[in-house]
Amino acid sequence: MNVLVINAGSSSLKYQLIDMTNEKLLVKGMCDRIGIEGGNFKYQVPGKEDYKVNQPIANHAEAIELVIKTLTDPKIGVIKSMSEIEAVGHRVLHGGEKFSGSVLVNEDVKAAIRECFELGPLHNPANLTGIESCEKVMPGVPQIAVFDTGFHQTMPDFAYIYALPYEYYEKYKIRRYGFHGTSHRYVTLRAAAVLGKKPEELKIVTCHLGNGSSVTAVKNGKCFDTSMGVTPLEGLIMGTRCGNIDPAIVPLIMKKENLTPDEMDVILNKKSGILGVSQTTSDNRDIEEGAKAGNKRYQLIEKMLVHQITKYIGGYAAAMGGIDAVVFTGGIGENNPHYRARIAENLRFMGADIDEERNNKCKRKDCEEMDLSTDKATLRILCIPTNEELMIARDTLEIVNGLK
Amino acid sequence: MNVLVINAGSSSLKYQLIDMTNEKLLVKGMCDRIGIEGGNFKYQVPGKEDYKVNQPIANHAEAIELVIKTLTDPKIGVIKSMSEIEAVGHRVLHGGEKFSGSVLVNEDVKAAIRECFELGPLHNPANLTGIESCEKVMPGVPQIAVFDTGFHQTMPDFAYIYALPYEYYEKYKIRRYGFHGTSHRYVTLRAAAVLGKKPEELKIVTCHLGNGSSVTAVKNGKCFDTSMGVTPLEGLIMGTRCGNIDPAIVPLIMKKENLTPDEMDVILNKKSGILGVSQTTSDNRDIEEGAKAGNKRYQLIEKMLVHQITKYIGGYAAAMGGIDAVVFTGGIGENNPHYRARIAENLRFMGADIDEERNNKCKRKDCEEMDLSTDKATLRILCIPTNEELMIARDTLEIVNGLK
Repeated sequence: MNVLVINAGSSSLKYQLIDMTNEKLLVKGMCDRIGIEGGNFKYQVPGKEDYKVNQPIANHAEAIELVIKTLTDPKIGVIKSMSEIEAVGHRVLHGGEKFSGSVLVNEDVKAAIRECFELGPLHNPANLTGIESCEKVMPGVPQIAVFDTGFHQTMPDFAYIYALPYEYYEKYKIRRYGFHGTSHRYVTLRAAAVLGKKPEELKIVTCHLGNGSSVTAVKNGKCFDTSMGVTPLEGLIMGTRCGNIDPAIVPLIMKKENLTPDEMDVILNKKSGILGVSQTTSDNRDIEEGAKAGNKRYQLIEKMLVHQITKYIGGYAAAMGGIDAVVFTGGIGENNPHYRARIAENLRFMGADIDEERNNKCKRKDCEEMDLSTDKATLRILCIPTNEELMIARDTLEIVNGLK
Repeated sequence: MNVLVINAGSSSLKYQLIDMTNEKLLVKGMCDRIGIEGGNFKYQVPGKEDYKVNQPIANHAEAIELVIKTLTDPKIGVIKSMSEIEAVGHRVLHGGEKFSGSVLVNEDVKAAIRECFELGPLHNPANLTGIESCEKVMPGVPQIAVFDTGFHQTMPDFAYIYALPYEYYEKYKIRRYGFHGTSHRYVTLRAAAVLGKKPEELKIVTCHLGNGSSVTAVKNGKCFDTSMGVTPLEGLIMGTRCGNIDPAIVPLIMKKENLTPDEMDVILNKKSGILGVSQTTSDNRDIEEGAKAGNKRYQLIEKMLVHQITKYIGGYAAAMGGIDAVVFTGGIGENNPHYRARIAENLRFMGADIDEERNNKCKRKDCEEMDLSTDKATLRILCIPTNEELMIARDTLEIVNGLK
């Protein structure tokens, strides 16, 4: 009962093989630089030495073939034949308004993914290529699509409609969609388990903080609002993305710098965020180190991040009419005790009270699911390492079981 | 000890004459359609019949002359001669980073207002024209400039820096400035008085909700964060302004609709907000009526407004690490008991508890300074009618007294 999880980018393909009888990760890895010079392949079996090989990979179908070939390799493989792969779960960025849950891929689903190319121009075409390549290499194996936007489809209209001319929503489907849905859903379920409650009983704010970051208000187990928008640009400051700004800045800068819409989009998505303010790095680990060493600009970035995250948590708490827990996840969320401590300090008046020792324990590589709060806290602060691949595999299994 | 308060627009000039011995309004009025066809003049003495006249008004200097002539008119005037006007206080939109308080106008101040033309292209040139016209018509009378941005200059850098390439701040001064500062400052002082505290002892969120709307976090009497940005477009949904959106929408729409930056700016500022979503009206009074009558789109707009305002209040409460009071002001803030009630309900977990009777009493025309909370509320909800003109007159008086 093994599920292969695929996350296909335009020139990369990440994969995991998970044994769903015990949710154990058998292998993870990546095919990189597909179709371009410098192709390479990584394959990691937990507890064993990493296997790496440099070789050209012409296209996504070749990448899948390489993955299958290695998974079934007599020496380093973990299964005997492709028939031991029950199903494939694909991460798909954008499901538009069509998909609130995961689905078995058929021609209609592929057409719908294609319809969302415009809303997810960087990811959706690659995701579809990943699906079609698997169909080609693994005929007859069920392919399941799991959408980053799916979890957020429960948002009420007053949270997803923008105050723009309404015809933009009707004509172009411009509305808030939200992303990282699989991660927000996973940590919501785990947080409820850690707290010994059902998700339906809880008001939670989940903070997925990584190179891309988003915050979600989860009310009674369902997404109520989220910080990312029609694209993953809106919301928090990210590695290279600006997050929220005065929208008037966009035409202002375009005129001042004589930029086309596409050039401006690149600046907002690739030259802003931590990179824009620091002018040196987009990596929060550098910011952390530099800030400790006294770099004022890096310290400013840390304060901006803490301020913004705090505002989102407080705002969503108010919007939900209360808050039981805050969950931190993602590379930054799982690894930065000092961010969590500063945010929790701001939330003290709402009942947060963090245990310093527990909080400090929970960081790079030692991070595990943990309630960081003292016993007297009424607002719990949790750290939950995310696992989007496992969530995709669970959805995949559930749908495949339903087919039987 | 009379102060004349001037708010000059590109083709209008609003004025008030205030007796500062008792802060009593003597006259208020407006010159409209200056320099264009259909010029007209309004003059209102409280308790007396309004005086209106249609006549061409060539420029702002002529408008000031008309105001002075009427103020000193033997029949309908309220003063004997211009010498009874001690000083003139001018509302100026944008003071950039130069002015954190009000100042006596001199050549340097005028140059600084001119430097901010680019940041306030619609207002600053008109404000300066108002000042120069008064200098011409009333030589020797002190002119004081009171900036909409002034109160917000205490914001910490982590609240005002955008996560854009840092050189935009250095080259173009693109940062959060905030507006409605005079209103937020006025209601902060009044709220403290109503609560029997000093502003320094309080954490307040002030909501100025009108055709333009902004929310400010006032920590210990000083602005800590505010919702408007480099321009008055950012933040809440307004009459015709979109407020916060995914910034990626701007280049996206420009490409889809083949728009120039200036055309896009017009859409964001003039065709969006309540007007954009309703497609019929920018006036919240229409929305209120229509929503009551069952119009679904209007009900959506009401929910969007309540959701956004609630999020700002909660966000700022968290950012300040606590909250003692929420203040509602401005046309919508002072007149909509049902918005206030819905927002207060969301904030119940933070200690809000509104007295329904008091809240319902506080609306159109009957609105006065009022704590709307029940005795058991720990987070107080206040309604404070704003008075920017009085605040301008107070600043003016203080500066003039300092000259003596």
